[in-house]
Amino acid sequence: MSCELCSSPGGAVLWQNALCRVVRVDEPDYPGFCRVILNRHAREMTDLDPGERDGLMRVVYAVEAAIRETMGAQKMNLASLGNMTPHLHWHVIPRFSDDRHFPGPIWAVPKRESGVPAERTARADGIARAIIASLGP
Amino acid sequence: MSCELCSSPGGAVLWQNALCRVVRVDEPDYPGFCRVILNRHAREMTDLDPGERDGLMRVVYAVEAAIRETMGAQKMNLASLGNMTPHLHWHVIPRFSDDRHFPGPIWAVPKRESGVPAERTARADGIARAIIASLGP
Repeated sequence: MSCELCSSPGGAVLWQNALCRVVRVDEPDYPGFCRVILNRHAREMTDLDPGERDGLMRVVYAVEAAIRETMGAQKMNLASLGNMTPHLHWHVIPRFSDDRHFPGPIWAVPKRESGVPAERTARADGIARAIIASLGP
Repeated sequence: MSCELCSSPGGAVLWQNALCRVVRVDEPDYPGFCRVILNRHAREMTDLDPGERDGLMRVVYAVEAAIRETMGAQKMNLASLGNMTPHLHWHVIPRFSDDRHFPGPIWAVPKRESGVPAERTARADGIARAIIASLGP
């Protein structure tokens, strides 16, 4: 039983500590989309001890704040699903009223053609810096 | 600017405290689906102070545990989206390999016709009791 998130980082790593890593998601429709991935293999938040839960969520909140600030997102979406890859990870997604699926979830049928402003894509480069400013290197 | 979750409970209330309430979601394809709704109006987790965040997530974890145990779910899904109703609420959803969208998110195009075993629907009646056993009345 191989697990994709045990055997690979799951994206370009922007930040990490002993508990988890933050990776940039390669999804052109959603610049700024990051995932916070637990380093050890566990399925559910309720499989973690309280200290791990709090430590993981502290990173999720810091990433949410970094993305909000850097991207100027209109709404933030947080989700821990893991139906296909049952290794605990959080999707942290900046949403805009003109994005491909808004106001639907990004997993729903698209509402419009893709058309991300270049300026928005460029801003995503600042997220790693904002995370480090918040959590340290 | 009226907010649906400020002006109504948002479902049958199973449990509540000063900070938040747990409601049962009326979605026949997903028995056991609950939402944890912040009582006051706020948009994002990063709009809450740390004590509120921790208090809200403590309830989310208790609801996840209650649903896992009561429903025998194969996977749990957690999501805070709020694109349509930007009043902080968490979806806590038990997933099964034979459910309508598995392994996709419940917001995606269905994978199969609906067909929930009656036994699964019946089990959802035990969730309120499991939440109270965990968090108190």
